[in-house]
This record gives sequence, structure tokens and C-alpha cells, in this order.
Amino acid sequence: MTRIDNSRTIRAPRGPELSAKSWLTEAPLRMLMNNLDPDVAEKPGELVVYGGIGRAARDWESFDRIVSALRKLGEDETLLVQSGKPVGVFRTHKDAPRVLIANSNLVPRWATWEHFNELDRKGLAMYGQMTAGSWIYIGAQGIVQGTYETFVEMGRQHFGGSLKGKWILTGGLGGMGGAQPLAATMAGASCLAVECRPSSIEFRLRTGYLDTSTTSVDEALLMIERSCEEGKPLSVGLLGNAAQVLPELVKRGVRPDMVTDQTSAHDPINGYLPLGWTLAEWEDRRAVDPKSVAKAAKASMAVHVKAMLDFFHAGIPTVDYGNNIRQMALEEGVENAFDFPGFVPAYIRPLFCRGIGPFRWAALSGDPEDIAKTDAKVKELIPDNPHLHNWLDMARERIHFQGLPARICWVGLGDRHRLGLAFNEMVRTGELKAPIVIGRDHLDSGSVASPNRETEAMRDGSDAVSDWPLLNALLNTASGATWVSLHHGGGVGMGFSQHAGMVICCDGTPEADARIARVLWNDPATGVMRHADAGYEIAIECAREHQLNLPGILG
Amino acid sequence: MTRIDNSRTIRAPRGPELSAKSWLTEAPLRMLMNNLDPDVAEKPGELVVYGGIGRAARDWESFDRIVSALRKLGEDETLLVQSGKPVGVFRTHKDAPRVLIANSNLVPRWATWEHFNELDRKGLAMYGQMTAGSWIYIGAQGIVQGTYETFVEMGRQHFGGSLKGKWILTGGLGGMGGAQPLAATMAGASCLAVECRPSSIEFRLRTGYLDTSTTSVDEALLMIERSCEEGKPLSVGLLGNAAQVLPELVKRGVRPDMVTDQTSAHDPINGYLPLGWTLAEWEDRRAVDPKSVAKAAKASMAVHVKAMLDFFHAGIPTVDYGNNIRQMALEEGVENAFDFPGFVPAYIRPLFCRGIGPFRWAALSGDPEDIAKTDAKVKELIPDNPHLHNWLDMARERIHFQGLPARICWVGLGDRHRLGLAFNEMVRTGELKAPIVIGRDHLDSGSVASPNRETEAMRDGSDAVSDWPLLNALLNTASGATWVSLHHGGGVGMGFSQHAGMVICCDGTPEADARIARVLWNDPATGVMRHADAGYEIAIECAREHQLNLPGILG
Ligand SMILES: NC(=O)c1ccc[n+]([C@@H]2O[C@H](COP(=O)([O-])OP(=O)(O)OC[C@H]3O[C@@H](n4cnc5c(N)ncnc54)[C@H](O)[C@@H]3O)[C@@H](O)[C@H]2O)c1
Ligand SMILES: NC(=O)c1ccc[n+]([C@@H]2O[C@H](COP(=O)([O-])OP(=O)(O)OC[C@H]3O[C@@H](n4cnc5c(N)ncnc54)[C@H](O)[C@@H]3O)[C@@H](O)[C@H]2O)c1
Repeated sequence: MTRIDNSRTIRAPRGPELSAKSWLTEAPLRMLMNNLDPDVAEKPGELVVYGGIGRAARDWESFDRIVSALRKLGEDETLLVQSGKPVGVFRTHKDAPRVLIANSNLVPRWATWEHFNELDRKGLAMYGQMTAGSWIYIGAQGIVQGTYETFVEMGRQHFGGSLKGKWILTGGLGGMGGAQPLAATMAGASCLAVECRPSSIEFRLRTGYLDTSTTSVDEALLMIERSCEEGKPLSVGLLGNAAQVLPELVKRGVRPDMVTDQTSAHDPINGYLPLGWTLAEWEDRRAVDPKSVAKAAKASMAVHVKAMLDFFHAGIPTVDYGNNIRQMALEEGVENAFDFPGFVPAYIRPLFCRGIGPFRWAALSGDPEDIAKTDAKVKELIPDNPHLHNWLDMARERIHFQGLPARICWVGLGDRHRLGLAFNEMVRTGELKAPIVIGRDHLDSGSVASPNRETEAMRDGSDAVSDWPLLNALLNTASGATWVSLHHGGGVGMGFSQHAGMVICCDGTPEADARIARVLWNDPATGVMRHADAGYEIAIECAREHQLNLPGILG
Repeated sequence: MTRIDNSRTIRAPRGPELSAKSWLTEAPLRMLMNNLDPDVAEKPGELVVYGGIGRAARDWESFDRIVSALRKLGEDETLLVQSGKPVGVFRTHKDAPRVLIANSNLVPRWATWEHFNELDRKGLAMYGQMTAGSWIYIGAQGIVQGTYETFVEMGRQHFGGSLKGKWILTGGLGGMGGAQPLAATMAGASCLAVECRPSSIEFRLRTGYLDTSTTSVDEALLMIERSCEEGKPLSVGLLGNAAQVLPELVKRGVRPDMVTDQTSAHDPINGYLPLGWTLAEWEDRRAVDPKSVAKAAKASMAVHVKAMLDFFHAGIPTVDYGNNIRQMALEEGVENAFDFPGFVPAYIRPLFCRGIGPFRWAALSGDPEDIAKTDAKVKELIPDNPHLHNWLDMARERIHFQGLPARICWVGLGDRHRLGLAFNEMVRTGELKAPIVIGRDHLDSGSVASPNRETEAMRDGSDAVSDWPLLNALLNTASGATWVSLHHGGGVGMGFSQHAGMVICCDGTPEADARIARVLWNDPATGVMRHADAGYEIAIECAREHQLNLPGILG
């Protein structure tokens, strides 16, 4: 079992030539490889894509075997992947998924980091995160629009719609968190992001997601202050430990306009640098004494959350950005850790009620022109949405592609399948140079149960009911998605969520039309269904408007 | 929400006439109704089929809506059922399942009885057990062969193959447990079963599963003693509380030949009568103070398990029969509760390694002759298995059908699809009067993760990895099973298992041939795969023999 091999450099093949037997198997092959592209993955040599230890395959032997299985896979065969290991190839049929994936799932009573890590050490497990183990991570862009939508919504709710002269305080510039500074400046705000790892800061500077950096709190505050006065959004990476910097800012009486955090707090062993430790100490002790690392990290998170609570109680909009840091602090005795809300109930749920979420696609050709053409097609098909057009323009201008060119835009039920069918038509006519794959994050309307994040504070109290993501995965399988995945843990860690992913390939065929029409309708429709069942008016209305057949819900 | 309506009597339609649009929707319709047939279900008016509170539908409104949705369902539509409630109808395709079911699934950290019961009270949940909520319970016969196979195997391991003159001590004559006395006498042993509910004893007497009953310990022991001396197997139901009777037997120095238990210990609120309580007290206090009921029940289970441990340490083969009673006792401080093994690692795993498990089918015609013909077909197709032939003969003679006539027989990879194809052919030619459905328990080779039962003490320590049942459900969906289900909790209760079900309808069409060939091959093959991955030689050999393509396992 080889878990680290820094000599390997993986890049997906580009262009219209197949290396597998069909586009339906070439697509997962390229997307798996793309997840490990050095421009995409956080630690490609360790198969780590993002989010702490979110991997694309269990080990290098498994990676090689997945690749070889996909190259040979027939049009009526399905590959099963179990926590990043290819375990079986079975006969199915043309309209069945070509790959079915289950990652990191544990029987609930054993669904703890402790047990997971034991299995992981034995080579029996892999942490799939959300899109890492399901091969549809597209680099930090994936999260930019989500973060952008959230910041814009915060601005709308708290500052009358304009973030001019405002600034956001946050932590973490990793795989997902690195999107924060760019999303902030796109939304018109300045951003101070505390990050403990120089390489994370450098990576964000290099890819244009972060404007500038410093190691001095004073200098950082000065730059932020100036940018706010001038009304010119600026993002500043501050090298430091968030658990040290935030309390200091509280003590100094500094008042950000909004506060959040995206350190990898969900994973106390691998994700959060304990207060007062050097990075080298952290790495070393993780290997020899993971328990004491977790203990120290959680204690530091408690300090961190207390500072966030101070900001919140001083009237500053403060939000948990889905890393489970409140839970960790609660477990450390911070009883009021959940005083400030999660970002989903606060800002995202109204979108989920209409099946709107992180829809995304990638150009298997590798040609940025293909994405430009699809961008134009989106504008053409959804003409009356200036917010969306604005996003597409800014994205085009400011977002550097990582790996295969890709685009994300939050659209919902009724729009997704129209876009999919249009893209498939563009592949058919040759307007695009190769097929497109369409997928989404597991963090979506109908695909996740996560009581501290996506399903926090559901109206009917059904936060923890995970029938919904399971039904979502089964239905996507039955509808003919190209690959479908079921994961546990994701962004909030072991025990805290179950979620499903799906990707469908637009290979230009009429068969793909039929699959796209089903999958890209049914998938967001399960989200509308789930929220309608919980009693949200917006969802019930949306279901009626789209004439969904929901017998036990609409009657 | 109507949870109890004793005025309703449900029986599946019989005969070759459709009440739905096709056999693929008629089949789940009849099997749902059959689960609630008064000859099948434990408490049909409460929609409770077996295993404590294992239900077929969430409430009567949901039942009616499922029925009406199934009657209207088209050949390219799929009904979604969420914890017994029909939540959506979606467009899929002909080879997709007609029904997809997820029951009782909870995000791990919330997967407790406490949280489940809270949701259940609010009408947001349903306990699906295994085959209750997935509509393939066929009455106590379902468990008879499993129990028979287990007893026979115990006899082989401990008594040189003959149970003549031996007797088994057990508890519980409910939905599953009621099969014990019959399985014991079929296997050649006598059986003393302690049961606290007169109606459960009467039901087993009436259906011929139990030979006789008494309220006196002395009389029971006398009858057992005599039957053993005469070498004439006899089953005796003893009215009493197992937590009282077993310690008394220990005290008296009574030595059974084997000891087990099938009270519903997995559910401390609804499944186990506390020591010293009357049934009426139990019912009353369950409604008003469930917590204190659970407390008292678990304390009694500890007493019960201590007596089982006494038998075990006195050298008597003692086994946990899958009701999680050891776990309950452990939680009550009985530290050595897991000294005696579970029945799966002890006796069943070698079968699972070859994909052998509780395969079953039912005749939708309602005609017992259809089952007689399939029995004959099984003998014809599997000529060299005297054990199996013996089972079929005895089953024919001694097992009364409950509801739609059905048969169970433990067969594995390589046999299941051959039987399915033959049955489909018999439907096609008109030899059978109507279609057959083929399914299995969730307690099967590849469909369950349950560290205290089916996956206890796996060779590689992967007991708690639940990727496997999820992959099983996804693959059955992709292969074209008629309905597929994913459950949590089953026979061992909240938090302790995840498991999947599948049923396929043999409607006589060539399309069904293709589906049967895939599903009834792939489904047991996932079990062989799972056990091969865990390192069991028998499974690795079986996989090689059947030329399974298992890239990461066989290399
Ligand atoms: N809200 C969302 O939509 C969403 C989506 C996915 C993930 N997440 C969660 O957000 C978190 C971040 O995800 P990611 O992919 O960026 O993870 P990551 O592990 O790639 O990055 C985390 C970053 O935090 C830094 N860090 C750790 N401890 C620190 C400390 N004490 N002070 C300052 N910096 C510290 C690390 O150096 C690293 O760069 C995770 O918990 C993830 O699960 C949220
Ligand atoms: N081993 C297997 O294959 C298997 C399969 C399914 C279920 N199970 C488990 O076996 C158990 C029994 O299942 P079931 O369907 O028969 O359940 P059930 O609820 O229908 O029957 C349980 C019976 O135990 C009796 N009982 C309860 N407390 C008692 C006590 N203190 N003393 C004597 N009798 C008592 C009840 O009156 C009832 O008749 C469950 O825990 C179930 O999950 C095992």
C-alpha cells in the first residue's frame, strides 16, 4: 500500500481522443485524474485533493487499478469503488452508471474519528470528503460562487445590499477556504484571512485568489483599514494562528463587519494547528501521538470560537462556514457555541428550497474556449438573471482555471436539465471540442443530511434524517447518472453527515439526452421534495409550479 | 396521522388479474399488502409486521397513498418511499426499479433510540426492521430455514452431526423467534422456549410451529426430559419471563444442550418485558414513561445475559441470535457479555463466503401449487444437494403458508440466477398461474454491516464498514431489481447496523430474463466480494471459481 509518492504527476488527458472505450468511461477517468492534477489537488503525491485528508483514491495501487479498470470497462459494465479501492466490475446495462462509489461509510455506533483512523491506518478506509472521492472537485472555483453567494446574501441582509467599505474576518486558505478572499472582493468587500501555512498563502497569491499577504497583524489591519476607506476591496492573507489572532483582535477592540472561519476544524487531528505549535511540531506529533494533537487542537478551537462569540455578541454578523467548529468547541465545554448560526439556515436554505445549488461542469477537451461557449449558452438560456450574468462575467475575468477548464453556477430545478440538454447538443454538433461532464457538490439541496450544516435547524426537526441523501443516490442511479457516490463525514467529519454525489456525461448522443433530461430534473427535484416535506413554503410552491408528483407531501 | 386502525383488514389480491398497470408494480403492491395480512403480520392494525415495531408503512394514510401511487405508476416511473411514506414519483426507465425505499436512516451522531423515538412521535420516522419496511417478509417461515441451518450446524460442530436426544433452551416466540421450536424439531432436537405473552404462544401453536405449552417450569422440564429420553423431538412453550426462568434453571443445575435467545432485546422500550412487570404495566408505562421502561428492560437483560454466561462457562454451546442482547448487557455493566459468540461468526459466515443466504420467493397467484412446482424445479436444477432436498420435503410437510405462498431456501452465487431464470420461464410458459417475486432478507452475505451480528469479528477488522451494503443497494438499482431498499437499525437496533434489501419480479418477459440474470448474479456476488476483501479463503476461492472481476481484491 503506497500512500505517498511525490514522484507521480497526474494530469487528465485532453482533446477528443479516447483512452478508454467510450466517453462514459473516459469521463470518470479524466475527472479522477483531474482531481489529482498538481494545479487542482492540495497534496497530489498523497492523493489528497482538499478538505484535510479528502482523497481521490485509497492508495496509489488503487489509483492505478481504477485507471486500468476504467480503460477496459464496457458499455454494459459498472465498476464498484469502496473507500477509494476498486472492488468489483459487474454486468449492468447501458443506462446504468458506469461507476458506483461508497466512501468512508461506517455503521453509526462506530462512526467516530477514532474508529475511522484505526481503519485508515490498517489500509481499510479512505476519507472521501465530498467531491474528492467522487471525482468532481474542480479546484477552488467550486467554492467561490457558493462563498460569493453567501457573502452577497450577508451584505443584502445586514448592509442593505452593498459591501462597499466593509471587511470580512476569516481563517483558513486551504482547498475550499482559499476561495474566501476572491469571493469577498468579487462581492465588493475586503477580507482578512488568517492562515498558518505559508504554502497555502503562496498558492492563493499565485492563483490570483488573494491580493496580498503579511506576517504582521498591524500591517494587515492598516491595509484593510485603508482599502475600506478608499472603497477598494482588498484581500490580505495574514500568516498566523486563528486561535491566537482572533482573541487579540477582540482584545484590541477591532470590529470587522462580518466574521467566519474555514480552517479544517472538522478534523481535529489533521485539520487544525494547535495554539502555540509550529507546523513542524504538528506534523511530527500527528504521526506519533494523534490523540494529543486532537486534544490540543480542540482546546484551541474553543479559544477560537469564544472569540467568534465575542464578535457575535458585539452585534457583528458571525457565521459557521460548515467546518463544524461550533461542535468541537461545544465538546470542549463552550456551552453557547451554537449561539451564532450556520451559513445554511442563515443564507442558503431559501435557495435549496428551489433546488438551487452548486451546479458545475467541466470541459473534457481541456480547451478553455469550450467553457467560454457554455458560459455564453447559459446567458442565452437564462436571459433574465443579471446576478448570474454578472457572476459569469466576473468569473471569466478573475478565475484562473485549475486543471480541466470548468464553470460553476448556482442554478436550480427547471434550469439544470435545460443547460445539460443544450450542452449535449453543442457536443453533438461539434460546437464543443469534446464532451462535457456535469456534476455538483454533495452540499446541495437534496443530497445531504448534516445537522450542523446543510440541514441545521430544519423547520420540522428532521435535521438528522438521512433517508433523503440515500434516496437521492438511488434515484440518480436509477435515472442513469454516469457515476454516483454515497459518502459519510464530508466537511463536518465522522458521524456528522451523510451525502451523495452524481456526475453525468454529455457525450452528444441522443441516449445521453434522455439520461440528462431525467437526472438533471430528478436530482434537484429531490431537494425541492425534501424541503417541501419539511414544510418550507418556497419549496411547496416550487413543487407545485413544476408539477412535481409528491403523493405524501402535496397529497 | 393514523397509526392504529384495527378495523382495517389487508390481504393481497390473488390470481392473474392486474390491479395495477403492470406486474412490476402489481408485485410491490401485493407484497406490501401481504406484509400486513393478518396471517403474516404481528399487529396488522398498527402496520407492525415483526421485530418489535417493524412497520410496512408509516401510517394508514401513507399506506393508502402508496397503494394508490403503485396502482397508477407507469413502466418508466419510480416511486420513492421515505421511512414508510410515499414522497415522490419520478421519471426513470423500464430497467430501473419501480420502487426505491429508505427507512429509518439517521446521521450517525443522532442514530440513537432516543432521537429516533422523538422523530417517530412527531410522525417523521418509521422503523423498517429488515423485510417489514421493504415488503418481503413472508411470515415465520422466512427465519425457519436460517434457524434450522444454524441448529444443524451447531449439532454438526458440537454433537457429531446428530441432535437426537438433545434440547435447546431459548426465549421469545415472536415474528422471528417463533420459528425456533419448529426449526429445532426439524433439526432433530427438542426445544424449550420461554415467552411472556400468551398470544405469541397461542399463535405458534395454531400455526403448527410449536407442539405444546405450559405455565409450569417443572412440567416443561419434565416434558423436555421425557422427549429427550425417547429421542422424539418436542417443542414446549413456557409462559414466563426469560430473565426470571433462565437464572432459575441455572440455580437448579439444569443443563440444556444449547442456549440462545430471540426476545426483541434490540429495542429496550418495545421489545423486552422487564423482570417482575405484568404485560399490562408494560404497555401502560411504555406510553407514559418510555425511559423508565428502557431502564428496567436493560437491567433485566443483564440478569438474563448473566444466566446465559453461566451456561456458556459451564461448557454449554451458547450463542447470541442476533437480537443485540450482549450489547445491552454490556451497557449495563456486564463486562464479559461478549464472551459467548454471535451466531454469524460461529455458524453462518462460511455460507456467506459463498454468497449463500436467505433466498426466498412468493407466488403472486396465491396458489400453493405454484410453490410446489417451484420446489420441484429447485430439486431438478440442484440435484446433488440432499440437505436442500430434505429441507424442501420437510418444509412442504410442516410449514403452513402465511399469506401468499412462499418458499425460502439458502442458496448462493451460481444457483440463484439459475433458479430465477427457470421460474421466469415457468411464468412465461404458463406453468405457473401468475408471476413470482424473488427476494431475500437483508441479513445476507453482501447486504449488511452489523458489527454485533452479521459482520461481527470479521477477519480484517472491517466489521463496521458500511460501504458494502450501500454498494449492494446501488448495484441492485443499476442492475434492474424491481424494488430496492436501504435501512438502518434492523434486528439490532438504532446505531448498530445498515442494510439493504432487493426484490425482483419474474413476470415471464425476456426483459425480466435479462434483469434476473444480472440481479441474481450481482447481488450474491457482492457478498462473495465483501468476504474475499476481508480475506476469507472460501470467498476468494469462490470468486476465482466463478471468475468474478474484483480488481483491487484478486489483483
Ligand atoms: N462551507 C462550505 O461550503 C464548505 C465546503 C467544503 C468544506 N468546508 C469545510 O471548510 C473547512 C476548510 O476546508 P478546506 O478544503 O479549505 O480545508 P484544507 O484542509 O484544505 O484547509 C484548511 C486550512 O486551514 C489552515 N489552518 C489550520 N489550522 C489553522 C489555524 N489554527 N489557524 C489558521 N489556519 C489554520 C490550514 O493550514 C489549511 O490551509 C473544512 O472543515 C471543510 O470541511 C466547508
Ligand atoms: N437471528 C436472526 O436471524 C434474526 C433475524 C431477525 C431478527 N432477529 C432478532 O430477534 C429478535 C426477535 O425478533 P422477533 O421478530 O421475534 O421479535 P418480536 O418482537 O416479534 O418477538 C419478541 C418476543 O419476545 C417476547 N418477549 C419479550 N420480552 C420477553 C421476556 N422478558 N421474556 C420472554 N419473552 C419475552 C415478546 O413477547 C415477543 O413475543 C429481535 O431482536 C430481532 O431483531 C434475529
